[in-house]
Amino acid sequence: MTRLTDRLHARYGAAPSLPASPAPESALPVLEHLLAHRSVRHFTDAPLAAGTLETLVAAAQSAASSSNLQTWSVVAVTDPQRKARLAQWAAAQAHIRQVPLFLVWLADLSRLERVARERGAQAGATRYFEMFLTAAIDATLAAQNAVLAAEAMGLGTVYIGAIRNRPEEVAAELKLPPLVFPVFGLCVGHPDPAQPAGVKPRLAQTAIVHREQYDAGAEADAVRSYDEVIQAFQRDQRMAPVPWSQQSSQRVAGPESLSGRHRLAEAIRARGFGLE
Amino acid sequence: MTRLTDRLHARYGAAPSLPASPAPESALPVLEHLLAHRSVRHFTDAPLAAGTLETLVAAAQSAASSSNLQTWSVVAVTDPQRKARLAQWAAAQAHIRQVPLFLVWLADLSRLERVARERGAQAGATRYFEMFLTAAIDATLAAQNAVLAAEAMGLGTVYIGAIRNRPEEVAAELKLPPLVFPVFGLCVGHPDPAQPAGVKPRLAQTAIVHREQYDAGAEADAVRSYDEVIQAFQRDQRMAPVPWSQQSSQRVAGPESLSGRHRLAEAIRARGFGLE
Repeated sequence: MTRLTDRLHARYGAAPSLPASPAPESALPVLEHLLAHRSVRHFTDAPLAAGTLETLVAAAQSAASSSNLQTWSVVAVTDPQRKARLAQWAAAQAHIRQVPLFLVWLADLSRLERVARERGAQAGATRYFEMFLTAAIDATLAAQNAVLAAEAMGLGTVYIGAIRNRPEEVAAELKLPPLVFPVFGLCVGHPDPAQPAGVKPRLAQTAIVHREQYDAGAEADAVRSYDEVIQAFQRDQRMAPVPWSQQSSQRVAGPESLSGRHRLAEAIRARGFGLE
Repeated sequence: MTRLTDRLHARYGAAPSLPASPAPESALPVLEHLLAHRSVRHFTDAPLAAGTLETLVAAAQSAASSSNLQTWSVVAVTDPQRKARLAQWAAAQAHIRQVPLFLVWLADLSRLERVARERGAQAGATRYFEMFLTAAIDATLAAQNAVLAAEAMGLGTVYIGAIRNRPEEVAAELKLPPLVFPVFGLCVGHPDPAQPAGVKPRLAQTAIVHREQYDAGAEADAVRSYDEVIQAFQRDQRMAPVPWSQQSSQRVAGPESLSGRHRLAEAIRARGFGLE
């Protein structure tokens, strides 16, 4: 249980006041794996072994899917020039160029529309917000499984929400048909051992978990403590320390802090989703 | 590698034409775990060990979070009467009553609003669609990690999208403040060994994965094969066999097939999200 305790400490930046985990011995490899996650932004140029993509996708497809509708798809990008263009549209993040595999996870209602059409039916529900949300959730469940599979194989990953900065360009580049929207990207590659990523601490559970009903009573204390924890982490990572409350407030100050994503609803509608 | 191969067969309902996995020996416990997922809908009445919730939440918080904004929360419901009410609003699904723990995963922008207010700032970006989507994605990544942690501890889970059938009632029951929306529920309990769940096969990878650009050329064949695979699975589970293409088409035929969720955008706006 020692490694699990160490990983809990890393995750909360201090000795967490959590009860001892009831996890049986057999659960530890998976729990330790889950707790050890870190986003990687520095990669070597080593290629991926053949079969890696198929293994990631099998893991992704093993996640739950709402009513088994499987309303997601993924584009695997390996072409250097295509990666370079995608990187440019996603806030010029260099790691998109560096990684051997860039996965673009898609909310995909077009398959159901084709399936319905083949049967002479209409897929009239695709115009509702609910169906877009279902598809985005399906894609996210799948992607998280792929992340965990990649990490199990010694690879590193980082989600790229910034492909939503320029969704029209991304959709054109990937030849996405209507009713398909790129929800986020994912870099997959070999982590650079010379620039290891740290485990980012999170808010204490008292700020996140509510018993029976929502109650933010313990939140202010948790945020105050976390402002200290995150700055200690940043110093450790040789980053300039900024309180989380300050950084987060700036990040959601207004439309100008969204890097173009204040137009997202318009871009999704332009892809044929009604969002009704 | 044998167990991994067996699990791939179960996941695709046949010998999949996938290249041999490049997974090293050390990756197998996690990969096998990911591939073995099944949704559980029959539970015993055994209680959960103390500390289970905290372990699930630590796993959940270990998932990536967009810009570390941590725009999600979770309500842990154990009260039998509250579970019964939630079950009623969620298409009367009996397993919500049965399980010792029902987790409601929340897209939560209210914390950032409180944090900004505390600093004398505005959280003006919360009115945009992008921020709602970010929060829903954050909640989903977290929940999927919790699912995998629960399964590692020998527990079973099933996502409950049906809490979106009656989001106003769920929000009132859980005393959710504005800018908090219940994305989905999750049943957590001990699987009933007398009614084991099967591993549900999925579409072949050729229908899901696109190389460099979207290309649905292989999809029709994959759907035809899958219609057979899913009916073989249903027969094996003593369910009435229905082709996936038929079932899915019916499920998205129109607003009447959404169990009330055609009103979702309105319900989310009523919770204070702008969705602009």
